[in-house]
Amino acid sequence: MVAPKQFLDYVEANSTRFIDRLAEAVAIPSISGDASRRNDVFKMAAWVKAELEKFGVKTDSIPLGKQHIEGQVLDLPPAIVGRIGDDPKKKTILIYGHFDVQPANVSDGWNTDPFKLHFDKETGKMFGRGSTDDKGPIMGWLNVLEAHHKQGLPLPVNLRFCFEGMEESGSEGLDDFIAAEAKKGASGWFGGVDAVCISDNYWLNDRTPALTYGLRGLAYFNIVISGPGADLHSGIFGGAVFEPMNALVALLGKLVTQDGRILIPGVYDGISAADADELQIYENLDYSVADLEAAAGGHIAVSQDKATVIMARMRNPSLSIHGIEGAFSGVGAKTVIPANVGGKFSLRLVPPQQPDDIRAKVEKYLHEEFAKLNTRCSMKIEYLHGGIPWVADHKHWNYEAAKIATESVYRKSPDFTREGGSIPVTLTFAENLGVNVLLLPMGRGDDGAHSTNEKLDVSNYIQGTKLLGSYLYEVAEITGTKA
Amino acid sequence: MVAPKQFLDYVEANSTRFIDRLAEAVAIPSISGDASRRNDVFKMAAWVKAELEKFGVKTDSIPLGKQHIEGQVLDLPPAIVGRIGDDPKKKTILIYGHFDVQPANVSDGWNTDPFKLHFDKETGKMFGRGSTDDKGPIMGWLNVLEAHHKQGLPLPVNLRFCFEGMEESGSEGLDDFIAAEAKKGASGWFGGVDAVCISDNYWLNDRTPALTYGLRGLAYFNIVISGPGADLHSGIFGGAVFEPMNALVALLGKLVTQDGRILIPGVYDGISAADADELQIYENLDYSVADLEAAAGGHIAVSQDKATVIMARMRNPSLSIHGIEGAFSGVGAKTVIPANVGGKFSLRLVPPQQPDDIRAKVEKYLHEEFAKLNTRCSMKIEYLHGGIPWVADHKHWNYEAAKIATESVYRKSPDFTREGGSIPVTLTFAENLGVNVLLLPMGRGDDGAHSTNEKLDVSNYIQGTKLLGSYLYEVAEITGTKA
Ligand SMILES: [Zn+2]
Ligand SMILES: [Zn+2]
Ligand SMILES: [Zn+2]
Ligand SMILES: [Zn+2]
Repeated sequence: MVAPKQFLDYVEANSTRFIDRLAEAVAIPSISGDASRRNDVFKMAAWVKAELEKFGVKTDSIPLGKQHIEGQVLDLPPAIVGRIGDDPKKKTILIYGHFDVQPANVSDGWNTDPFKLHFDKETGKMFGRGSTDDKGPIMGWLNVLEAHHKQGLPLPVNLRFCFEGMEESGSEGLDDFIAAEAKKGASGWFGGVDAVCISDNYWLNDRTPALTYGLRGLAYFNIVISGPGADLHSGIFGGAVFEPMNALVALLGKLVTQDGRILIPGVYDGISAADADELQIYENLDYSVADLEAAAGGHIAVSQDKATVIMARMRNPSLSIHGIEGAFSGVGAKTVIPANVGGKFSLRLVPPQQPDDIRAKVEKYLHEEFAKLNTRCSMKIEYLHGGIPWVADHKHWNYEAAKIATESVYRKSPDFTREGGSIPVTLTFAENLGVNVLLLPMGRGDDGAHSTNEKLDVSNYIQGTKLLGSYLYEVAEITGTKA
Repeated sequence: MVAPKQFLDYVEANSTRFIDRLAEAVAIPSISGDASRRNDVFKMAAWVKAELEKFGVKTDSIPLGKQHIEGQVLDLPPAIVGRIGDDPKKKTILIYGHFDVQPANVSDGWNTDPFKLHFDKETGKMFGRGSTDDKGPIMGWLNVLEAHHKQGLPLPVNLRFCFEGMEESGSEGLDDFIAAEAKKGASGWFGGVDAVCISDNYWLNDRTPALTYGLRGLAYFNIVISGPGADLHSGIFGGAVFEPMNALVALLGKLVTQDGRILIPGVYDGISAADADELQIYENLDYSVADLEAAAGGHIAVSQDKATVIMARMRNPSLSIHGIEGAFSGVGAKTVIPANVGGKFSLRLVPPQQPDDIRAKVEKYLHEEFAKLNTRCSMKIEYLHGGIPWVADHKHWNYEAAKIATESVYRKSPDFTREGGSIPVTLTFAENLGVNVLLLPMGRGDDGAHSTNEKLDVSNYIQGTKLLGSYLYEVAEITGTKA
């Protein structure tokens, strides 16, 4: 069912007010990673709660406990949950978003005040911290609610909301809340949810809408090599002792080929080659090697073949070396032999890779390779962090609805993408609620989330609002399991 | 000629006052690397000048120009030069020392105030910043001067002094002054100098006096690898692009074997094997693999053979990897692909290696190895710093005199050592004056120069004062070229 003209017209007619709404949200510097801004995150939570209630949503502010940060103990910002509609004949969609933002200072290189939305009418770009990540999408949902509430239009589905204020700081406290609510079943805030929709990622490029159905997992390691009791002077000891840095670079050099083939035995076990269907998805994507190199800022693609490069970033595992802890990292020419050095690297994982299994393989390989070095330094392997990969069924009605809605709003088929990184809450919902999760991005690939001069194109905001609403109508219409 | 009993007895009788002299010097926090302490370096210069004059030395305070430090323009501390004795029948010895010190704070881990000499009578250790590096040795010379002046004893040689206040900060300004004075010939401050004596290094251990006749040179490099336009997120780009860190660890892994054999072709050219005479020196040293490992704080010696380990630290070149600039170096698990990374390493050089030649060989090798990587990242090699190695004729009368003096004071033959690191002013004197330079250490290997709880043993201070004086008498006596 195409969204009613009444809804679409309202969005067009009220676009200036919708922009004002975004400006109001951007003006609250709700930086979750900065203890001195914690009050602003609370203020933002209250603002979101009040907006939801204006449009008939029943809400609650859920305390998530305490946080230890910068030597202080602070209250975590609450999760704002909401529900509207309880018609058992309608599907129920859970909407997730986050109202906290990354830090931003004019001195970082912003052209305008990051907390004052700057709408450049010539380019159609609205600059401001949080414009695209993730206040724009939350405003999109508020706009949809307003359009229905003000016009007395019934919503086509029951809606549940879960908006958080700690996403940019590891979503502290949220997982426990989601798990606890899920256990409550029908009586919990997420009772009866048929599918989840998360708008917190981006199109692959600046041209074509996208639906995202996969995220890579992670296994993060630190190889710690020790030798001397303290840092030594290379003038005095150089040549006479086994040096930890020397062992470390030898090991780091054995992890992956220059063009990205991981050298750890067994790491590719079980990963199937892409079949014709899957290859077709990559071939269909509106994305080129030139797009990748433009985004990377250098002619450094591992291949000139489009599908190869796309699979490398979306559906194949990868291994990156991030840096060294404990060695000399300053400018200048210090002649130190560092005593304890840690080499940080991580693998991005894809199904069926599991972090625990990868961890065992990495550790076995490193112990073998370390033994071959015949150094008298010692090695310890730290496992810092892990996350399982996620792939959704992109033929599920949740995706089908989003696809039809995209085609109706943008007159263009969406790219079906997988993200190279992780959005951990996706897995939390998928695992705890056992329903399909859709990643439905509003912004473009060049929006610069987390970067200076973050922006959202006004067309993505207004068309995006129409898309979110249209998606609900298509969900209502489409054949699919009603849980 | 053994030093007269009158001199030796005076030193014994006045040891408490000599300790007070050292305490007075230590109390002036003449930290050359700290702009806020610059006045104290000037104060220390004036103090040294006044002491010299008390004992009949004609002095001058030589301005060395300006320094740019921490955003300020400061006057460099002056060099204090002095002369006493102009007897053409006597040899003329130039004494060098530095009256500036390294920074020190109780909070670094000092057990006592670093700028208040703490004499622990039980252990005989005098703790304080500069106690051994290099105020102790300067006080030693002042003590020698006092003993002669107060007793009306003629000095056995003509003396020239060059004391500086910027040694711990690269001896800024001093090289130019030495070169200019040397050009003046007989009319300059260093006219007629027959040999140089520098007390600014340490015994190999805590048991046996040493004479040092060699210093390794240095060639310091930074391999800079660039790729992306800015740091990338490994979730988004990992696997799809060539990564600079990956190329860097590959190159750093090709520089040197774990046990220290340098892999750069031609780097060992011209370095002769140690002959029987030289091996004898190493066999004679009061030093063991256990001493090395105790000093290093770990069982990490590259060999269990004494001579092999000693040659590795003194007379063979070495290569150490110091660290990485531009990569992630913090704690935690940041998933960055660093865009520009610099790998810092340096070679310690021995005769006949020359930094320029080594540089050419290193650069050629790295370019060849980089080409083999087939990465699309780019490489640039920065040469940060170089210094030529130095070896003196340890059979020169200057060393012979020091050896006899050591045997008479300590009743023990000195270790003939070469230092693994550099003392740049040694080369400046050797090259500009064209005379033999002797490194005659006062302190022990465990004194902890530059470290917390720096100390000088009182016996090294008092016996050391006797040694400096005795050395002058042996110089006067010994057969040798009078320039
Ligand atoms: Zn976000
Ligand atoms: Zn974000
Ligand atoms: Zn020194
Ligand atoms: Zn020093």
